[in-house]
Amino acid sequence: MKLMSFRDASGRAGWGIVEGSKVADLSATAPTLRAALAAGKPITAPASAPRLDLAGLTHLPPIPDPEKIICVGLNYLSHILEGGREPPKMPTIFTRWANTQVGHMQPMLRPKVSETFDYEGELAFVIGRHCRHVAEAHAMSVVAGYACYNDGSIREWQRHSTQFTPGKNFPATGAFGPYLVTPDEVGDITGSSLVTRLNGEEVQRATIDDLVFGVARLVAYCSTFTFLEPGDVIITGTTGGVGAYRKPPLWMKPGDTVEVEITGVGTLRNPIAEET
Amino acid sequence: MKLMSFRDASGRAGWGIVEGSKVADLSATAPTLRAALAAGKPITAPASAPRLDLAGLTHLPPIPDPEKIICVGLNYLSHILEGGREPPKMPTIFTRWANTQVGHMQPMLRPKVSETFDYEGELAFVIGRHCRHVAEAHAMSVVAGYACYNDGSIREWQRHSTQFTPGKNFPATGAFGPYLVTPDEVGDITGSSLVTRLNGEEVQRATIDDLVFGVARLVAYCSTFTFLEPGDVIITGTTGGVGAYRKPPLWMKPGDTVEVEITGVGTLRNPIAEET
Repeated sequence: MKLMSFRDASGRAGWGIVEGSKVADLSATAPTLRAALAAGKPITAPASAPRLDLAGLTHLPPIPDPEKIICVGLNYLSHILEGGREPPKMPTIFTRWANTQVGHMQPMLRPKVSETFDYEGELAFVIGRHCRHVAEAHAMSVVAGYACYNDGSIREWQRHSTQFTPGKNFPATGAFGPYLVTPDEVGDITGSSLVTRLNGEEVQRATIDDLVFGVARLVAYCSTFTFLEPGDVIITGTTGGVGAYRKPPLWMKPGDTVEVEITGVGTLRNPIAEET
Repeated sequence: MKLMSFRDASGRAGWGIVEGSKVADLSATAPTLRAALAAGKPITAPASAPRLDLAGLTHLPPIPDPEKIICVGLNYLSHILEGGREPPKMPTIFTRWANTQVGHMQPMLRPKVSETFDYEGELAFVIGRHCRHVAEAHAMSVVAGYACYNDGSIREWQRHSTQFTPGKNFPATGAFGPYLVTPDEVGDITGSSLVTRLNGEEVQRATIDDLVFGVARLVAYCSTFTFLEPGDVIITGTTGGVGAYRKPPLWMKPGDTVEVEITGVGTLRNPIAEET
């Protein structure tokens, strides 16, 4: 099942299930996808749900309003090595705020204050249940689905101090989508490939089974220090090939198009625009 | 003016203005103090507002539900030097989630997984207006008020990687209060002293004018990378004397009482309890 959040031509925000070129609009059953996950009931499309044309909708991030966005850094060996770092013993955890997110096809914004705007193609997953202290063996049961994420980073600001926060929280730098795809539809995510393309050229490639800390391990780790809630987003880190470590560096600039594709999850595509 | 958020004996959450031993309950004018700040109108207590006994109320964090909690690290020279670090050129920014906060007199919880629970007495301030790219010269106009904060830290988890997030986000480790005191009542905050006491013994002391990055500079810096919103909390960092750098280390343990006092702002007091 592919779930999405959208804005229709009238400006109304909603969410639903994608059915080919149509979307079953489930906004009447819960105000948001996050609220639907929190309600804890199976998500299905009754025959009575309105069917909207997918082509007429603007994508929002699948979860536009997460309570938490937990970001993992340095989680593929190739990316760790290109930065001259040692493989980690524990996950590197930083955060984004919800106001940094954009959906599929919405512009990612290069800020006024820096040109060092870099891509990071990533696998994201979304939590389906309130939980704490989840054992790794049971962790997959709290995963509601997967999506692509582009953890767009302002490298100059990421390196102002030891803490990544400023460089990861400029408005409209985190692209998320196009859909939230349920685990039963994806199957074994560790078999998927992750590819990032800038203007059609492949710039990153990895397989999900190269993650140092996989999905279940991240659920176990994060749920030890915080309550995880329905709609929380965990983005699992990027792989080698980021622009910052290229010689010369490769930055995203207005007019570019960036894509993150994950097998079985979809392709997230965003134009780059200048912040106004 | 002293503003507070509370829960009354019936369990109802509300907010109001402290008037000696009474609180003018303004919950009918806006559902939360954050919402009242967002409404942008002067906050006053009409004669018709119910007056509640302060002694009968449970303190909540002055802003229980901030969109963002922006934390500054390494912002007093004495604390920088005790950690063996160089004075920073840019602020060190990390984050908390709202679910980590407790109010005055509510227990701060030592988690099950680590005994390395440390105090960090800090000055917090709250944003009063939606803003971006605020010049330092105008920054004080977006500050709605000040409060004491205890940025309780699980040092072991703070040091799992380069990023502080896990050690700063265990539930009920961030104490905030007792009140939000408006700038007109505090006067020049740089003249205030900050003192932390553990079981009555002074363990930290600083003056606010020792901040490497002061309030106005932090507003300017943070508003460059993010929109600041009414109710956003910025906690300005701690000073020397934390438990982690003592020999032997001094950790907070169940049964302890910790206080953070700032001249003109108040005294935040919390018992320490074990997470159950």
